[in-house]
Amino acid sequence: MKSMRKIDRQMTAEETLGVLTKGEYGILSTIDMNGQPFGTPLSYVLKEDNIYFHGALEGTKLDNIYFNEKVCFTVVGSTKVLEDKFSTEFESIMAFGDASIIEGEEKLQALREIIKKYSPSFIEAGEVYINRAIEKTCVVRIKITHLTGKHRI
Amino acid sequence: MKSMRKIDRQMTAEETLGVLTKGEYGILSTIDMNGQPFGTPLSYVLKEDNIYFHGALEGTKLDNIYFNEKVCFTVVGSTKVLEDKFSTEFESIMAFGDASIIEGEEKLQALREIIKKYSPSFIEAGEVYINRAIEKTCVVRIKITHLTGKHRI
Repeated sequence: MKSMRKIDRQMTAEETLGVLTKGEYGILSTIDMNGQPFGTPLSYVLKEDNIYFHGALEGTKLDNIYFNEKVCFTVVGSTKVLEDKFSTEFESIMAFGDASIIEGEEKLQALREIIKKYSPSFIEAGEVYINRAIEKTCVVRIKITHLTGKHRI
Repeated sequence: MKSMRKIDRQMTAEETLGVLTKGEYGILSTIDMNGQPFGTPLSYVLKEDNIYFHGALEGTKLDNIYFNEKVCFTVVGSTKVLEDKFSTEFESIMAFGDASIIEGEEKLQALREIIKKYSPSFIEAGEVYINRAIEKTCVVRIKITHLTGKHRI
């Protein structure tokens, strides 16, 4: 992984983690067996060095992960078009890592973390929901190997 | 390209174009020579069947496009977390296509379209800005070959 070309735009580790923790959604970049990249928007949760997301038991992004486990997960924080500067202020992070499908206790805990992030007022109902849906749900973990954040394009 | 798995979530062509036209930024998914996907947030403009974006004359995303011209460009429209439904309403589009660096008249026109989109009150100053910056700026065209839009994850 190359270092950032414009070093003055690099965010601190704390700022980067802040954007990744608080983001409402991220874009998962994967590649299919024909070399076609895909960028899929997803809800997710960060837990330690792992990003977790869930979805259906089949689909293009799972096929892609089976083909190539290397992924990028991009989260954009606040943005502001500076009309008179011909520029845009923004903050964004890119997390690189390896994706794999998880099962068992880690899967259950990941779904609970997703409920805590997105439905903090519905923890009990969320537990019922998890019990009903867990067999029909796939949970993917991205083990982050490299994380960068920058302030501007 | 496979058809969408959940057909009820498919957006109409008009809705899809609406999200792509109005989006403030998109995520460009590319791949590097080691099979590592990248998702890069970018300002852009849509003109007919082409997405245009600009940037520095060098960098990872250009290296990636030289290596593999196939890209995906993802734009997310409005989103709304439905806390009690354990779900998120959202609209998003994915444009697949081939990226290439453009020069000459098409490059100039693309930069003008970018000014029109992001700095509509500064067209004249934008023209001065373009003249000053055009030699130090790279403009990339994504020729869209396939476009999909969906309403929900």
